Amino acid sequence: MIIVKGGVTTPKGFLASGVAASIKKSGKKDLALLYSEVPAIAAAAFTTNRFQASPIKISKALLKNKTHRAVIVNSGNANCANGKAGDRDALLMTNLAADVLGLMGDEVLVASTGIIGRRLPVEKIRKHMPNLVEGLSKENGHLFSEAILTTDTKKKELAVEVDLGGCTITIGGAAKGVGMIYPNLKAEGHATMLCFLTTDAAITKRMLEEALDEAIRESFNMISVDGDMSTNDSCFILANALAGNARITGKNHYYDIFLKALKFLMIELAKKIVLDGEGATKFIEIEVAGAGNQTDARLMARKISTSNLLKACIYGEDPNWGRVVAACGASGVKFNPDKVDIILSDVKVLSNGVSCKNYNKEKVKELFKKGRIYIKVDLKGGRFKATAWTCDLSKRYVEINAEYST
Amino acid sequence: MIIVKGGVTTPKGFLASGVAASIKKSGKKDLALLYSEVPAIAAAAFTTNRFQASPIKISKALLKNKTHRAVIVNSGNANCANGKAGDRDALLMTNLAADVLGLMGDEVLVASTGIIGRRLPVEKIRKHMPNLVEGLSKENGHLFSEAILTTDTKKKELAVEVDLGGCTITIGGAAKGVGMIYPNLKAEGHATMLCFLTTDAAITKRMLEEALDEAIRESFNMISVDGDMSTNDSCFILANALAGNARITGKNHYYDIFLKALKFLMIELAKKIVLDGEGATKFIEIEVAGAGNQTDARLMARKISTSNLLKACIYGEDPNWGRVVAACGASGVKFNPDKVDIILSDVKVLSNGVSCKNYNKEKVKELFKKGRIYIKVDLKGGRFKATAWTCDLSKRYVEINAEYST
Repeated sequence: MIIVKGGVTTPKGFLASGVAASIKKSGKKDLALLYSEVPAIAAAAFTTNRFQASPIKISKALLKNKTHRAVIVNSGNANCANGKAGDRDALLMTNLAADVLGLMGDEVLVASTGIIGRRLPVEKIRKHMPNLVEGLSKENGHLFSEAILTTDTKKKELAVEVDLGGCTITIGGAAKGVGMIYPNLKAEGHATMLCFLTTDAAITKRMLEEALDEAIRESFNMISVDGDMSTNDSCFILANALAGNARITGKNHYYDIFLKALKFLMIELAKKIVLDGEGATKFIEIEVAGAGNQTDARLMARKISTSNLLKACIYGEDPNWGRVVAACGASGVKFNPDKVDIILSDVKVLSNGVSCKNYNKEKVKELFKKGRIYIKVDLKGGRFKATAWTCDLSKRYVEINAEYST
Repeated sequence: MIIVKGGVTTPKGFLASGVAASIKKSGKKDLALLYSEVPAIAAAAFTTNRFQASPIKISKALLKNKTHRAVIVNSGNANCANGKAGDRDALLMTNLAADVLGLMGDEVLVASTGIIGRRLPVEKIRKHMPNLVEGLSKENGHLFSEAILTTDTKKKELAVEVDLGGCTITIGGAAKGVGMIYPNLKAEGHATMLCFLTTDAAITKRMLEEALDEAIRESFNMISVDGDMSTNDSCFILANALAGNARITGKNHYYDIFLKALKFLMIELAKKIVLDGEGATKFIEIEVAGAGNQTDARLMARKISTSNLLKACIYGEDPNWGRVVAACGASGVKFNPDKVDIILSDVKVLSNGVSCKNYNKEKVKELFKKGRIYIKVDLKGGRFKATAWTCDLSKRYVEINAEYST
């Protein structure tokens, strides 16, 4: 597997574009289009929030089609809590794109991110659609990555190449974070992270859905910025078969290679969201090992990753690892507290549930000053493990979200 | 029912005291003693965190006794994650108090709050015990309330008087907050909130446990400062029967009166914790109505109360009520999003799942500038309701917890 500096337009046959349509007050880019030159099969996963934004309802319905050609995306407005009028707006957005692209309306998927409870300015979208379509190119993959951002400070894009039986296939992706990040996506189900993945691999719809679902569990569903699950989280993947590999139709060797590459790409994009988390100054990796089953390992790693107290002490470079102890116990996972070890990087601070007397306190202080913090909890109750990623809780996070809508 | 400016020593026969024993670096009071002049029956509820501090293990075991006389409490050290040595220290603490008081060791209950993972300085406690016992008095109830505090800025104490068949009984209480507050206490089960309740009512142990359990569900188990559940949360109640009422032995009319008064007192103490929440500048009340069952109503109210995004926007006086929409849907409760109303004080902003077009935006802005914010979510799917209380998420909260242990 080779990592390529690229994004959604790196795989064969994908073009993209991004423009400023004045949906955002700031005047920044806010309308993005992803396009496949040939029909592609699509799979997606959506937020499990009970309030689902209109673009999610529309995309879910459209995913029943066999093939798709494009995804139209806006930032700056979530198109959520707008009722049937919002649904009509989302559908209209797909039709506006289809008209200019010369496609059927149901070949275009849709996603939105931004403020909840305001009508989508459809006329602005209509006005800028010709411009957007005209901008479609390989190079403008970068504009796509830019136009999907909200409070993000950086574009998040990457691509990988991998060999499938002598044929090179490429997977590319672009994602946005960076607040309201505690995705719990289900295939045809939930995240406002947004992620758009493309591949020129030939694969059946069923296997594509399966691979997306498996990869999400270890990537986007394991990150947290603030523990708030969005109404708009969406992850799409389009596969257009232009690489010419033998189509992946089952869980064979090639599927495994494809899945591994997809997982790698999605974990890297998920980490980029955390690294750019609102106000983040530290990147935190939490590994839970020795769990009795996979669900418990993931649940505990995720729960620790949402502890405000842990995140605030890491922001302050205060080595108050008692916060990890409390968060473990509050996770709802059953375990024997008298067996638990906690290790910070390579320093064990808790052994069999008891605070280590003579651990190197100076070294732990030094570890907390680094930009990346590694915390391992070993429950010693089984063979399952999971890793979650989060960032610290900073004063800047509070500032950003104290003034978001105004 | 009459509200009395008082606390744990307001009911007949209770004395208390508080001193500085240098457990805290600051030199503030950190050792507290509550004492009943006659044997009292006791009930308690403890954190459901899987990591339970040593004083909780010891108190749980001691609660099997029929009667108790005292509770010894320290702040500044949680005595958690100290293994069997910690358990011995907690037990020793009860024995040190019993010795000076002339009681049996098993008549003294114990509680701790403070930093996790450091051994309890038992010698300091031994040294200051005579002083502490000598200070026992009605007046020094206030010193007790002070000595149990950590990052709290205010004492939290109150008492109520109520008539039980011609006999006045009194219930008093003292509590501490104010970080790591997301209690989920179970009778003989969990908070680091600490709460100590006293009453001179005559009541059986079973009925006392029952009343405590019922009152906790609507008070301490409905508050949140940061969503972090402590290893040390404890709520004790002692009843010494000195009021001379006919003993409450079942769920009769007098039980109902007692429960109502207890609930009132505990809700008021719980609200005081939120009002003094770490860095809090706003008090937020969240009511969920129209739920299909009580569990769902409570779960959703609590989950909304832990939304960092909602809490940050309220801190910023930014009327971004879309945060409430997202938090409802993320709660895990099943409901019909197309029926939901959201009301801020008396302004409806969401009606049947749709953003209201012409609500008074200026009035909502004004509401967000007040010190108390009322949010109501009506699911219109049943007759159950619940209320939760929380505070905003401020930059000061982050500051406090960035430098807590150092």
